Amino acid sequence: MNPLNPSFAREVEDSFTRQPIMTLVGARLSLVEPGIVEITLPYRADLLQQNGYLHAGIITTIADSASGYAAYTLMPAGSNVLSVEFKLNLLRPAQGETFVARAEVIKAGKTLTVVRADVFGLEANADRVLVATMQGTMMCLPTS
Amino acid sequence: MNPLNPSFAREVEDSFTRQPIMTLVGARLSLVEPGIVEITLPYRADLLQQNGYLHAGIITTIADSASGYAAYTLMPAGSNVLSVEFKLNLLRPAQGETFVARAEVIKAGKTLTVVRADVFGLEANADRVLVATMQGTMMCLPTS
Amino acid sequence: MNPLNPSFAREVEDSFTRQPIMTLVGARLSLVEPGIVEITLPYRADLLQQNGYLHAGIITTIADSASGYAAYTLMPAGSNVLSVEFKLNLLRPAQGETFVARAEVIKAGKTLTVVRADVFGLEANADRVLVATMQGTMMCLPTS
Amino acid sequence: MNPLNPSFAREVEDSFTRQPIMTLVGARLSLVEPGIVEITLPYRADLLQQNGYLHAGIITTIADSASGYAAYTLMPAGSNVLSVEFKLNLLRPAQGETFVARAEVIKAGKTLTVVRADVFGLEANADRVLVATMQGTMMCLPTS
Repeated sequence: MNPLNPSFAREVEDSFTRQPIMTLVGARLSLVEPGIVEITLPYRADLLQQNGYLHAGIITTIADSASGYAAYTLMPAGSNVLSVEFKLNLLRPAQGETFVARAEVIKAGKTLTVVRADVFGLEANADRVLVATMQGTMMCLPTS
Repeated sequence: MNPLNPSFAREVEDSFTRQPIMTLVGARLSLVEPGIVEITLPYRADLLQQNGYLHAGIITTIADSASGYAAYTLMPAGSNVLSVEFKLNLLRPAQGETFVARAEVIKAGKTLTVVRADVFGLEANADRVLVATMQGTMMCLPTS
Repeated sequence: MNPLNPSFAREVEDSFTRQPIMTLVGARLSLVEPGIVEITLPYRADLLQQNGYLHAGIITTIADSASGYAAYTLMPAGSNVLSVEFKLNLLRPAQGETFVARAEVIKAGKTLTVVRADVFGLEANADRVLVATMQGTMMCLPTS
Repeated sequence: MNPLNPSFAREVEDSFTRQPIMTLVGARLSLVEPGIVEITLPYRADLLQQNGYLHAGIITTIADSASGYAAYTLMPAGSNVLSVEFKLNLLRPAQGETFVARAEVIKAGKTLTVVRADVFGLEANADRVLVATMQGTMMCLPTS
């Protein structure tokens, strides 16, 4: 997939740093390529639900932002990206020292872009485990 | 809808207080009735995304927990509740002094319960505005 | 909700009659109001799945078309309507002499409209039973 | 993925032939492997919607059945499979001489199995084109 905006990576990084929620939960951008974005989130006890697993809303926080930015990498310069909707299936208990949301564009359109995001839990010295998967729709808004 | 567990309200409250994420974001339980739960979240600047609106992942955090607890009110004593999947449509910019997620059970089953949750933004002296709506599936797990 | 197109009902009917699939399955338009459309489908043995219930794809056929037309009633004259995505929860075995999909617009937008559709099974001399519920996104395309 | 039921292929075929809707629309099973099922549907004018494309409900019919049977290949002998819910994104106009729904299990569980299905349109002498993608949840019911 060919980016229309040669500065796509810097624009994603700039936008990410303007998301206060990412600072609150401790997430960081770990990969930005055309059509693909990863966000990494270290385990923290204050992000958990009642059974000691990462809350589905926090899984969604990183999966949705990764999805939006994956779509954004393929949008023209001067666009804004908006989440239209998403659906998340929770597959296994969200455990790990680190969580990674990896989003990939399935179909980029002028107005709507469809993205899939997988969220993995990683333990030290172990394979990554798929804990959730998202399918969503992102919208391109011209900002100027 | 008739609760099978006469202590459903106390069990929801107990479980809610065991969710560290609710403390982190500042959410509180504001209504617990058979098949209906509301969670209220005051505006805070550190919960926002890059355009100054409540992040979709935080909208999801309160909508998913309200949905899970709405299902939980109708489960037998000694159950545990688990989110299977949900789908969220974002309808309007998530603005307000306060946000309320109101979840209602559509169909309670022995294993699976389907729930709808609406998320509203409230300004002082103004009507509440529907900002997002969720349709999801919750699962009952016997804990004993 | 106020229709922008005074001929909305006739345009829905015209479009419906141009859907060959509706003839194949035997569905008919039974209600067209601003933001609300119903499609009725009589039981037929050749629409069933392996357990003798209406196939989820046929439930979807009437729910999706009802959703698209509910959105269409609120679009400007000369528009075309397109399904972007939908999510369906199956709640109970889809039994009945007749099935009705009732779609209502939740949020009408210039480009995207979010719609909910409930599908009911009806037996003679009995209450209608909710068998499935859909939440979906429809898109307005200018045709001229 | 290892099938628990050595007769999984025959059981899928037997169940498929008991679905009258598959005969009505002209669909046939084209691949049955552990965790993977394909259903093929030739173009027919009476399956179309108002713009001349395959109706989303018929896309869903083959995607949902392929998903259910993909899950079924991994279930124990004597099980029954039930669709819990699914979400479909429509990516491109559903055109082609033939349509193929290919479903793959993402996560097989004792009670719930999560499946993804892609639906392709195929023209003679051309590459297949992805027209829709589904993410859904299937349930295992013991029949005996």
